[in-house]
Amino acid sequence: MTKDRSLPIHPIGVIRTPHKEAEKTPIQPCFAREIRGEIEVNPEFAEGLMGIEGFSHLHLIYHLHQAEPGPLVVKPFLTDEPTGIFACRYPERPNGIGLSVVRLLGVEGCRLVVEDVDMLDGSPLLDIKPYFPKADRPEGTWGGWTEEVDSQDAQLRGKRQSNHG
Amino acid sequence: MTKDRSLPIHPIGVIRTPHKEAEKTPIQPCFAREIRGEIEVNPEFAEGLMGIEGFSHLHLIYHLHQAEPGPLVVKPFLTDEPTGIFACRYPERPNGIGLSVVRLLGVEGCRLVVEDVDMLDGSPLLDIKPYFPKADRPEGTWGGWTEEVDSQDAQLRGKRQSNHG
Repeated sequence: MTKDRSLPIHPIGVIRTPHKEAEKTPIQPCFAREIRGEIEVNPEFAEGLMGIEGFSHLHLIYHLHQAEPGPLVVKPFLTDEPTGIFACRYPERPNGIGLSVVRLLGVEGCRLVVEDVDMLDGSPLLDIKPYFPKADRPEGTWGGWTEEVDSQDAQLRGKRQSNHG
Repeated sequence: MTKDRSLPIHPIGVIRTPHKEAEKTPIQPCFAREIRGEIEVNPEFAEGLMGIEGFSHLHLIYHLHQAEPGPLVVKPFLTDEPTGIFACRYPERPNGIGLSVVRLLGVEGCRLVVEDVDMLDGSPLLDIKPYFPKADRPEGTWGGWTEEVDSQDAQLRGKRQSNHG
């Protein structure tokens, strides 16, 4: 245990994406459809990938390495209403842990080719957990304030790309 | 940055469940239906809960505090086949980060009452991310080796409770 009592959590790889700037990075995989990236797992963890190729989707858990903890009430990207940090996925969180569901396209040694990437290039990878439909698709889900967001507006805000370029 | 380069990740609360022993703890929320627990968020983060009551389900990210990193190839609870640690949700992982989707029943100040809890009592809470159906329920999901598991056998193995008591 270190003096500041940080948990013993270390990067196990790195996420490569075309998103080089935080302010132009899509906010969720559903706004990053067909954008391809790669997960480079450190070679010492290669064995841990055995059987991963059978899954269609993966949860990536990663460090939001360019985001500092911020206010506990924020205006998330999809709404102008003040919202608690735990009621949204805004990156400036008390612990800078990101979570995204991506589609797995292929495995080449320690590299995973994935699609629907919404992470900043260079994000340190902390864990990969396979998407297990029985556990991760409970019935009767309701997305709170996100259900009220107009879907065209969401696409525009969520992609965060200029429409004028 | 500390000397061992652990990331600056700290508990923000604690998860209370009826599961006091690791070996009797259900392995996923889908095997812990209607088992109730409470999330105690530290009071200094209370504001961050604003708006959370609108969501039906939450992702909890927590520290698997009683699990040490183990071998990279394991026999997960639901199969006897050797499986990579990143192709299953087995707790003895390189980084001891747990992820569970639970149903939110109610919010009382800094306490969240939840259902379908599969965590060990006392698990340190690291983050709460609302379950956002548009992002977290992609189409065409396939759960690799878990799709082959007989569902009655899975219930028996997944609950990890004695049937003889």
